Amino acid sequence: MNVLFLGTGAGVPSKQRNVSSVALELLSERGAVWLFDCGEGTQHQILHTTLKPGKIEKIFITHLHGDHIFGLPGLLGSRSFQGAGDPLTIYGPKGLADFIKAALACSKTHLRYPIHVVEGEGGMVFEDEQFRVEALLLEHGLPSYGYRVVEKDKPGTLMASELKAAGVKPGPDYQKLKEGGTVFLEDGTMIKGSDYIGPPKKGKIIAIAGDTRSCPALEELAENADLLIHEATFAQEDRELAYEYYHSTTEEAALLAKKSHVKQLVLTHISARYQGEQIGRLLEEACRIFQNTRIAEDLLRIEIEGLTEEE
Amino acid sequence: MNVLFLGTGAGVPSKQRNVSSVALELLSERGAVWLFDCGEGTQHQILHTTLKPGKIEKIFITHLHGDHIFGLPGLLGSRSFQGAGDPLTIYGPKGLADFIKAALACSKTHLRYPIHVVEGEGGMVFEDEQFRVEALLLEHGLPSYGYRVVEKDKPGTLMASELKAAGVKPGPDYQKLKEGGTVFLEDGTMIKGSDYIGPPKKGKIIAIAGDTRSCPALEELAENADLLIHEATFAQEDRELAYEYYHSTTEEAALLAKKSHVKQLVLTHISARYQGEQIGRLLEEACRIFQNTRIAEDLLRIEIEGLTEEE
Ligand SMILES: [Zn+2]
Ligand SMILES: [Zn+2]
Repeated sequence: MNVLFLGTGAGVPSKQRNVSSVALELLSERGAVWLFDCGEGTQHQILHTTLKPGKIEKIFITHLHGDHIFGLPGLLGSRSFQGAGDPLTIYGPKGLADFIKAALACSKTHLRYPIHVVEGEGGMVFEDEQFRVEALLLEHGLPSYGYRVVEKDKPGTLMASELKAAGVKPGPDYQKLKEGGTVFLEDGTMIKGSDYIGPPKKGKIIAIAGDTRSCPALEELAENADLLIHEATFAQEDRELAYEYYHSTTEEAALLAKKSHVKQLVLTHISARYQGEQIGRLLEEACRIFQNTRIAEDLLRIEIEGLTEEE
Repeated sequence: MNVLFLGTGAGVPSKQRNVSSVALELLSERGAVWLFDCGEGTQHQILHTTLKPGKIEKIFITHLHGDHIFGLPGLLGSRSFQGAGDPLTIYGPKGLADFIKAALACSKTHLRYPIHVVEGEGGMVFEDEQFRVEALLLEHGLPSYGYRVVEKDKPGTLMASELKAAGVKPGPDYQKLKEGGTVFLEDGTMIKGSDYIGPPKKGKIIAIAGDTRSCPALEELAENADLLIHEATFAQEDRELAYEYYHSTTEEAALLAKKSHVKQLVLTHISARYQGEQIGRLLEEACRIFQNTRIAEDLLRIEIEGLTEEE
């Protein structure tokens, strides 16, 4: 499981930072990539990575501001042009489907794969046997959602070498033991599956806040997350601006990370007003409160040790 | 007068070429820039130039395919974000206004400057004392227009040193002579304005073809142009593909340039299937027919000696 930052700037693109998009690469987990937001130029950023647009299975949109959605029509069209056939589902606030429809219709873009647009008002937006994704309403002056991606726990693996030592031969017995059953050896010894199954493996939790003011819903979003991706549009000294424009500061994000017991915090959606050394100071502000903080930059990739890799 | 290529690729962006946009810089002529097409990432390309979005006075859209319009909403928004207040007029085919409206409404983008969208079916789309712009319907499977930008001729300038030698003093007499009138010196000598006005100066003609098959309307578009900007999506050997997809080849563009007596031809909208040496071969194909040909690349700037600079 990798998190790949495609755009880490705020509002308008700059030479250093494109507008918002982050990819959650779930290649070993499900051979797929999930995108969160899709600002203009996201497909251009992807050209500089190994990410294949055809692998994008889901796109989650936090809110409808242009810097989070204007890259959608182009990405959808290019994905089709490149021959992708797998369906794509796009989740986001009410109004998203109209935008996509208008852009595709006007430009006579005929996609060669099915798309589904799921507009919602928060809550559980997706669940299967591997993952569930919850959307939590934050505060940004218009509906803006944070997404909490929860990988489900996996039962422990069978301790194969211990079983072999005990005299159990690989085959149907293994499957039985794996399911918690009991088998008997030729000498009558009873072997209980529960004695030979490792501890269950905790799934990972990735919390991705959209643009937002500091608000109570963020705690539910971030609780115990392995990685919290949070906007820090402003430095702490500009907290009045942050509040006025429905954004957050470095310290607000760090306090949330601490309070919610997250393992790692990555700050993104950095205003272009901060350059060079000032970026270091943003990091300092956050680290004073929550040590394990990083500032995202475009094309930064963070590995999250996942269930699948551990096996 | 400069022509600045912002995107010179076909259909989808590549690392080498962004999707379509070209700027006509009329800074000395009218302190303004005109844009022709605005594919996704046009505002990103502008970041690497001296072009100021606030100076963009007009945007002409050739047709509504995504690679020619998906950069519009972002550019409009960023132009506002940067504080531009001057009005902007956008010309293009029917359907353009709906797209812009949908994108701005969905994203809650409130522009701080007035925009006017002029949808038309060809003909004269703009005229003032300096320029006229005609749109000609080409062949691209959907309405696609070429734009012929005609700078109006300017009357010759007054020959100041010759007048001084003849004994005319600078002042009101100069204005009278400039307007073609007659004045008398103190010794009774008659001075006729027409004798002291230089030859009129020819305005420049820039012809910008959108995506198109080779078609008769192109001749009217290109006739006597100082610069013809023409797509060459395909090499000559792929002419069947060009025809099938409503595009042109190198040779078709060069033949048009020759037949229409243009001074300079620049090929653009180059398919990403041609790379490295193949680009040289595209150029050769065109140059065999029309010598003064160039292949555009992103951020190429071509100076066109204009009326204003000559003075
Ligand atoms: Zn934003
Ligand atoms: Zn095109």
